[in-house]
Amino acid sequence: MKLAMIGLGKMGINLTENLIRNNNEVVAFDLNEDAKKDAQELGAEVTDDLQSVVDKLPQPKIVWVMLPAGKPANTTIDTLSNILSKDDIVIDGGNSFYEDSLTHNEILKAKGIIFFDAGTSGGMSGANHDGNFMIGGDNKEAFKIIEPIFKGIAQKDGYLYTGKAGSGHYLKMVHNGIEYGMMQSIAEGFDVLEHSEFEYDNEAVAKVWSNGSVIRGWLMELAESAFSKDPKLNEIRGVMHSSGEGKWTLEEALKLQVPTPVIAASLMMRYRSLEDDTVTGKVVAALRNEFGGHDVDKK
Amino acid sequence: MKLAMIGLGKMGINLTENLIRNNNEVVAFDLNEDAKKDAQELGAEVTDDLQSVVDKLPQPKIVWVMLPAGKPANTTIDTLSNILSKDDIVIDGGNSFYEDSLTHNEILKAKGIIFFDAGTSGGMSGANHDGNFMIGGDNKEAFKIIEPIFKGIAQKDGYLYTGKAGSGHYLKMVHNGIEYGMMQSIAEGFDVLEHSEFEYDNEAVAKVWSNGSVIRGWLMELAESAFSKDPKLNEIRGVMHSSGEGKWTLEEALKLQVPTPVIAASLMMRYRSLEDDTVTGKVVAALRNEFGGHDVDKK
Repeated sequence: MKLAMIGLGKMGINLTENLIRNNNEVVAFDLNEDAKKDAQELGAEVTDDLQSVVDKLPQPKIVWVMLPAGKPANTTIDTLSNILSKDDIVIDGGNSFYEDSLTHNEILKAKGIIFFDAGTSGGMSGANHDGNFMIGGDNKEAFKIIEPIFKGIAQKDGYLYTGKAGSGHYLKMVHNGIEYGMMQSIAEGFDVLEHSEFEYDNEAVAKVWSNGSVIRGWLMELAESAFSKDPKLNEIRGVMHSSGEGKWTLEEALKLQVPTPVIAASLMMRYRSLEDDTVTGKVVAALRNEFGGHDVDKK
Repeated sequence: MKLAMIGLGKMGINLTENLIRNNNEVVAFDLNEDAKKDAQELGAEVTDDLQSVVDKLPQPKIVWVMLPAGKPANTTIDTLSNILSKDDIVIDGGNSFYEDSLTHNEILKAKGIIFFDAGTSGGMSGANHDGNFMIGGDNKEAFKIIEPIFKGIAQKDGYLYTGKAGSGHYLKMVHNGIEYGMMQSIAEGFDVLEHSEFEYDNEAVAKVWSNGSVIRGWLMELAESAFSKDPKLNEIRGVMHSSGEGKWTLEEALKLQVPTPVIAASLMMRYRSLEDDTVTGKVVAALRNEFGGHDVDKK
């Protein structure tokens, strides 16, 4: 099939390679010239702007947007709504907030353009090979048009039509919330081991846990890989950034009043890790000093 | 190799089958006659008491204890310390608390008997096939004697000599603490999905997440299996029992002062699930009523 890939970052460039390997023709676009060159070397046709992307596609035109959530994705989808036509298809494969996807759906639907929100998991390696896709969209019939694309680039059983528009990105959001909790739990376990009276080889532990244990899975395999390069992770600081999905999951849980203490705690620990010192710490220390004369650590 | 299996519960009986399939001879013992009959049907030789177990073994006698942690395991290992001899080997494959294992090690070592604490993961299916074992013991040389047993019954790369006595059960304890957090995180995600504005097929979600996603792993595959039998889990109550290892992990984290909020919250949510109503709930409701006149739900 011939389709466009808008956005050639870490995910977009790997998806481009995966698509081409699976006998798709890709028209690729990015603002970054180096990224375009990389795509060209992979066999993609590159263009100078969104209009030329659209011009190069047969009908119905299929445009996959793989851009950072928020402004980059939003403005691009807005532009596409003005240059695509009825029955063309936009796939947002990025991590857009599902309410943005509902907006995108309304904007595009008003012009007869068909929208799919495709949550994408599996990391860069998954984008490149055997990926994972959760695809929402109001037009279930039209999903049949794009299904062969996903069948080719996904892991076996690794794509799902999830229902109406927004449901794909919503499911990906919750997936990432779960991921936060799982990662924090794994990490806390290694933290206990590190402080214990025993001497463990982290790589060997992650390896044995990856082979036959109850907690085996891809995250444990990635832990094995990380420890194999840096047995005590001495080369990195324990600063845990996040890109939004965990926060959205928690906001959604608050909206729905669903108790999610583990996902909440894992997000809070990420925020804590961003601070060298905390107001909380100062306040508690000061109060202990006030009522009990307990020593405070001075700056 | 010829060895004894003491305890033919869910784990012991499956291990017996696994051992026999891997060309070991098993002398099996349990207080329950039906369990012994099952073991006999699998090809094990059964006996009437611990002394006859020991009598049937060649030297060095290898006795695998697979009993519930606490009194059952402790009293059996005490008895074994009196009827085994120097250079015989006791493997505790159950979920004994690691401090108990340190005690077992001292008791046995005083008589020259060699002790290994073998944390066992992988559930019943793992016990039966391609299991997972974390094995501690002070006598690293003697591990070579029993290593072929584990090599046969474990998943490839699914066993590890973890160091001195206690380190096997300690590692298994932390494994289970991690498991608590991972399970709670997965469960919270499905709880959000259930309350969301979208209609998800839980089995299909667990299946797509099991194939190529970042959160893929055995627990997600088990979720798929559970949802395939009961799509909304209508047949079971959300009561989460526990058998001790999560609590021990948290106690250990408290002792070491390692922050483990996710493992803590997952344990607390298990305890919460055991109560239909809570004193906490009553107190908070009463206080809101006292200061703000907020309605309370009457009994």
